Amino acid sequence: MKNKLLVVGTMAYDAIETPFDKVNRILGGAATYIALASSKFDVDCGLVSVIGADFEESDLKILQDLDVDISGVELVPDGKSFFWSGRYHDNMNMRTTIDTQLNVLENFNPIVPLSYKSAEVMMIGNLHPRVQLSALNQMEGKPKFVVLDTMNFWMDNFRSTLDEVIAKADLITINDEEARQLSEEHSLVKAAEKIHTMGPKYVIIKKGEHGAMLFGDGKIFIAPAFPLDQVIDPTGAGDSFAGGISGILANTDAINFETLKSGIIYGSVLASFTVEQFGVKALLAVTSKAINDRIEKFKSLTSFEWNDKQKNI
Amino acid sequence: MKNKLLVVGTMAYDAIETPFDKVNRILGGAATYIALASSKFDVDCGLVSVIGADFEESDLKILQDLDVDISGVELVPDGKSFFWSGRYHDNMNMRTTIDTQLNVLENFNPIVPLSYKSAEVMMIGNLHPRVQLSALNQMEGKPKFVVLDTMNFWMDNFRSTLDEVIAKADLITINDEEARQLSEEHSLVKAAEKIHTMGPKYVIIKKGEHGAMLFGDGKIFIAPAFPLDQVIDPTGAGDSFAGGISGILANTDAINFETLKSGIIYGSVLASFTVEQFGVKALLAVTSKAINDRIEKFKSLTSFEWNDKQKNI
Repeated sequence: MKNKLLVVGTMAYDAIETPFDKVNRILGGAATYIALASSKFDVDCGLVSVIGADFEESDLKILQDLDVDISGVELVPDGKSFFWSGRYHDNMNMRTTIDTQLNVLENFNPIVPLSYKSAEVMMIGNLHPRVQLSALNQMEGKPKFVVLDTMNFWMDNFRSTLDEVIAKADLITINDEEARQLSEEHSLVKAAEKIHTMGPKYVIIKKGEHGAMLFGDGKIFIAPAFPLDQVIDPTGAGDSFAGGISGILANTDAINFETLKSGIIYGSVLASFTVEQFGVKALLAVTSKAINDRIEKFKSLTSFEWNDKQKNI
Repeated sequence: MKNKLLVVGTMAYDAIETPFDKVNRILGGAATYIALASSKFDVDCGLVSVIGADFEESDLKILQDLDVDISGVELVPDGKSFFWSGRYHDNMNMRTTIDTQLNVLENFNPIVPLSYKSAEVMMIGNLHPRVQLSALNQMEGKPKFVVLDTMNFWMDNFRSTLDEVIAKADLITINDEEARQLSEEHSLVKAAEKIHTMGPKYVIIKKGEHGAMLFGDGKIFIAPAFPLDQVIDPTGAGDSFAGGISGILANTDAINFETLKSGIIYGSVLASFTVEQFGVKALLAVTSKAINDRIEKFKSLTSFEWNDKQKNI
């Protein structure tokens, strides 16, 4: 029996402009990237999301072909799918949102299918905390492990609902500025300590091109981003990262600090492929061999020996 | 016989303001931090610098007590020492220079003492490229290994002289934005490749709280910054880092990618102590045991195992 991974999040179309190229309408959304990333593992992944009548049959088929269960994806017949349009600047670290059309997302009431109410791992993508909480409350008891993603917008505007969700999460993934905002601490070490007291036993701080930090069990693990010759489209990097982590967690019996470390490495490697092409293209195409090769390289990037002569100084 | 390390750089007094505290006049300067950091190693370190009549006897004694040779430090009897004053903002990553008084630095003509003209390792701190070049040209042949530090100001205003210096360096240490400026490449992988063609076989890109990257011999090594509960004063972090690297290099017979990796770890650990107190205080006081403890912790921060089950996905 495979473990079940329930993913709650957006499915979308994106228009993306970078210094190199431009696309008008490609498959996107957090849940899409998370499901594609976690499908690299032998897990039973189910999606809870919402789409409009404009959502392409062929895009749903991409997920179905990977055995992703889309029975929890609500189709609103007279609605349009969530649409996001953005522009990346020269340095690829900054982006400007040109347009956000919530469309069917505006009145989204997630329905968790019966068969996923007892999923071992629940990955809640960046959404309105009200929606996140509603999905969580439909689960039969508390899932073994809940991963939560969120962002500064919800901290600014819906903090009390967000705090309720955070209290139920085992792992929260946020970026460094969000960690500082959430905790009101500048040091990321102190920020993580404070966030632990809000609920999550584990905290992953995402730093984009600077990598990620994991805090938990009194320990810290730091991983760089995989260094690349060129970044083509950063969209979906964070969600591919979260999907890799969720995939590892759902594929593991014992979830602990070491499993989370593996999750970070795997998620970082998947994200490194994602950003090398527009949209989900590279994530879809990448082979197990290519992934494992990059994981081996990852090891050599950070490992070092401290020899005895140096020790005797 | 100890190997010789020649350090060329500034000695200064600093006035520093942080969100926590303020000091009006404390010992500073790149050469000071570099010499103090490298003195943790069994090397014969000589300084080339310039000071004014206001330079405290007790501050020179700090260096002499650590067997740093200060015969190359010129005293200008009617001059004042280089003075820098700056303020760190809330996030400690940004600083504003309030005042820079070059004073004796303005007409600095470095004189390398005869006994250091054949130093094995030469560490050239951030200075006017003209001064850096003058010191380099006084060496008897090319030193075994030349480490060069510089910054964007010299790239903006004295690029052709700077290029001459860079051509003679074996290792250059710059931050990420400077690497991008110098190479006109955004990807740090490509930036390092381009900088190799300008001279340096090795490139270290400093990213402050995000750590450092080493490029050379077709390989990449990435180290995080040591995570701290609190940063009190970031002044001197980069120079402590460079000093740790120079100390390791001068203490090693074979300088290669592995030695440089050790240098980065050692330099990062020294920098992590430096920033925990104002000025040189923590760097001076830190014991070998405390350094080695932190190096051990450093290892556990980044090492990971990739187990067989995961490999079989």
